[in-house]
Amino acid sequence: MAHERFRGWASRLALGLLSKPNTPKQQKQVTFEASTLETLKPAIYTTLTETKTQNTPGVYSLTFREMGWAIALHGGAGDIPITLPRERREPREAALRHCLEIGVSALKAKRSPLDVVELVVRELENNPHFNAGRGSVLTNKGTVEMEACIMDGNTKKCGAVSGLSTVVNTISLARLVMEKTPHIYLGFDGAEAFAREQGVETIDENHFITPENVERLNQAKEANRVQIDFTQPIQKDPPEKAPFENGDSQIGTVGCVAVDSEGNLATATSTGGLVNKMVGRIGDTPVIGAGTYANSLCAVSATGRGEAIIRATVARDVAALMEYKGLSLQEAAAYVVEECVPKGNVGLVAVSAAGEVTMPFNTTGMFRACATEDGYSEIGIWPSSMHT
Amino acid sequence: MAHERFRGWASRLALGLLSKPNTPKQQKQVTFEASTLETLKPAIYTTLTETKTQNTPGVYSLTFREMGWAIALHGGAGDIPITLPRERREPREAALRHCLEIGVSALKAKRSPLDVVELVVRELENNPHFNAGRGSVLTNKGTVEMEACIMDGNTKKCGAVSGLSTVVNTISLARLVMEKTPHIYLGFDGAEAFAREQGVETIDENHFITPENVERLNQAKEANRVQIDFTQPIQKDPPEKAPFENGDSQIGTVGCVAVDSEGNLATATSTGGLVNKMVGRIGDTPVIGAGTYANSLCAVSATGRGEAIIRATVARDVAALMEYKGLSLQEAAAYVVEECVPKGNVGLVAVSAAGEVTMPFNTTGMFRACATEDGYSEIGIWPSSMHT
Repeated sequence: MAHERFRGWASRLALGLLSKPNTPKQQKQVTFEASTLETLKPAIYTTLTETKTQNTPGVYSLTFREMGWAIALHGGAGDIPITLPRERREPREAALRHCLEIGVSALKAKRSPLDVVELVVRELENNPHFNAGRGSVLTNKGTVEMEACIMDGNTKKCGAVSGLSTVVNTISLARLVMEKTPHIYLGFDGAEAFAREQGVETIDENHFITPENVERLNQAKEANRVQIDFTQPIQKDPPEKAPFENGDSQIGTVGCVAVDSEGNLATATSTGGLVNKMVGRIGDTPVIGAGTYANSLCAVSATGRGEAIIRATVARDVAALMEYKGLSLQEAAAYVVEECVPKGNVGLVAVSAAGEVTMPFNTTGMFRACATEDGYSEIGIWPSSMHT
Repeated sequence: MAHERFRGWASRLALGLLSKPNTPKQQKQVTFEASTLETLKPAIYTTLTETKTQNTPGVYSLTFREMGWAIALHGGAGDIPITLPRERREPREAALRHCLEIGVSALKAKRSPLDVVELVVRELENNPHFNAGRGSVLTNKGTVEMEACIMDGNTKKCGAVSGLSTVVNTISLARLVMEKTPHIYLGFDGAEAFAREQGVETIDENHFITPENVERLNQAKEANRVQIDFTQPIQKDPPEKAPFENGDSQIGTVGCVAVDSEGNLATATSTGGLVNKMVGRIGDTPVIGAGTYANSLCAVSATGRGEAIIRATVARDVAALMEYKGLSLQEAAAYVVEECVPKGNVGLVAVSAAGEVTMPFNTTGMFRACATEDGYSEIGIWPSSMHT
């Protein structure tokens, strides 16, 4: 554990602490032995040895500035028109604000990042305005098949579930898979059976189905198209346009990432998937490294067209660019969103062990919110966000 | 496509062509324009510009040695005792040899790498000595739940399936998901329904269940343990040992990777999972980036303890270390196997666009075979392999 904390500190240093919104909170100095240094990954090690003060042979001293906790969450990215009617916009903004407050309070109360991301995603699942839990979009058979995934950065422990139709909070079931089984990932009937075994809250499938999503499925079927989400009516494809190709109005999924002031990281993502998806379709959310990933450098939750996110191993690549290429969180996330996934297909929220936050997207908009310990906060939908 | 071929050539150069078993086949020179050069990924670009011969401004010339096609396959890694009885060893060696011959013939006949890996994995699935297709290990309910995944390197197109109990060749269903649906991944009832829709060969579940695997499940249940595979009797855990912890005798999964002489790459993996796994358990095989991954640099198929492989995003990390850190195929694969996954948990086969092959494992053994165009061939189980 001490070792993992050193890695967190070292990565803050490696990242140069160049967070845009954040300002350093305080200076701290730690001392550790060479054996600890050697366990650090090469990229971090290089930065460390450059900055070490060698007082006693074999003992290293490292000064760093502590950044404090940070949190970011999303309620889906997609082609959200700037003309989105007020009655569709305001309840979502209010929900983002409410969920952000819950997460911030939990971090201030020293709840673990794993607890915090689970708590926030449960709230997002319970809100019918987002495509996860209640409000999940429907399969081509009119059913609900929900997925969720949670991951702890330091231990890389993780849990995932797919194909659920009766579990009220799938994110909590994903956590139980992580904590109570020898496995990481359970799907469909086996996951439902496990939910009953564990006694988590279940409910009739109709609880999750909103009138808006029934209407949306009907429109998608009429247009013969798999649609990625929820707030907009679907335009019929012009006849020359192939079904299943782009033109999706909005993109779903909810997620949250958090880091505490000791650099411990966690991520959680939950979704109903795609409107009119085939029964049995699994998306990026439960795929570790695609929609969801955390290690000791950063935590990432992605949203958008699942198939594009899987192909680009989006969440792992943000972390891999930091780990193997030495990029900062912002650089790594921007590279993945701009260079690795076709435009219009992805958004993500991420925090680093250094307490940095980034929320890039290559879609028209992304429902998102973040806050950091030093007082920065943001709630936004389109590129120009409201600073609060 | 021309662009992708340039990337293949460039990566051969970037890799230094330092393949251990391979020797260069021939020298070739290509000329291309600056605009092509600029589309190459930064790491490759650097190597290219260092070696270019600038005859005409804006036109670059590149000399490289062509390595030819290569193929590698595995039939599972694990704690395979060196005392493995001859009657258990020989049929598996014969099967490896047979499957290798099929793959080599197909490559020589200019079949695409995607066709080649599908063909070889079908053979491995049909062989009852390996944990995939017929011969799949059983869940804790005595049922079969098979998984498979296929991926094309240049396009990053991929397909995956989970939770199948009647499909004779799951790898071919994974390919149909890739080619015939807007999705990447179908699981359980939805995947079975898709199989029927596509008219692939299905059969009663009993076809897949061998007497050895019934016995194996009984032993695992007696020992109250999830076991990773197949060829050895299970030792009962000493009472103080927690269930589900290590001590697994063998590890399953089959897979194949191939590259043609133009640097086109593909990978395929198929598995029955873990002995005594929970119903609904999904492993690393269908998780793109964990058990299976290919891009324009390399193709990887992993085997071992799925949960450890998912956590370490094994297959993507081999490629990411080449892409972001500039390591060779051998270096990248060795780093992932030695540093990123606990000992006893993983093996993999991989080929690069340069025609290199590597088959590292951190278990006692791995059933494996490979061949390259320049005549190198190897079939092995333990670290010292038989050169053929």
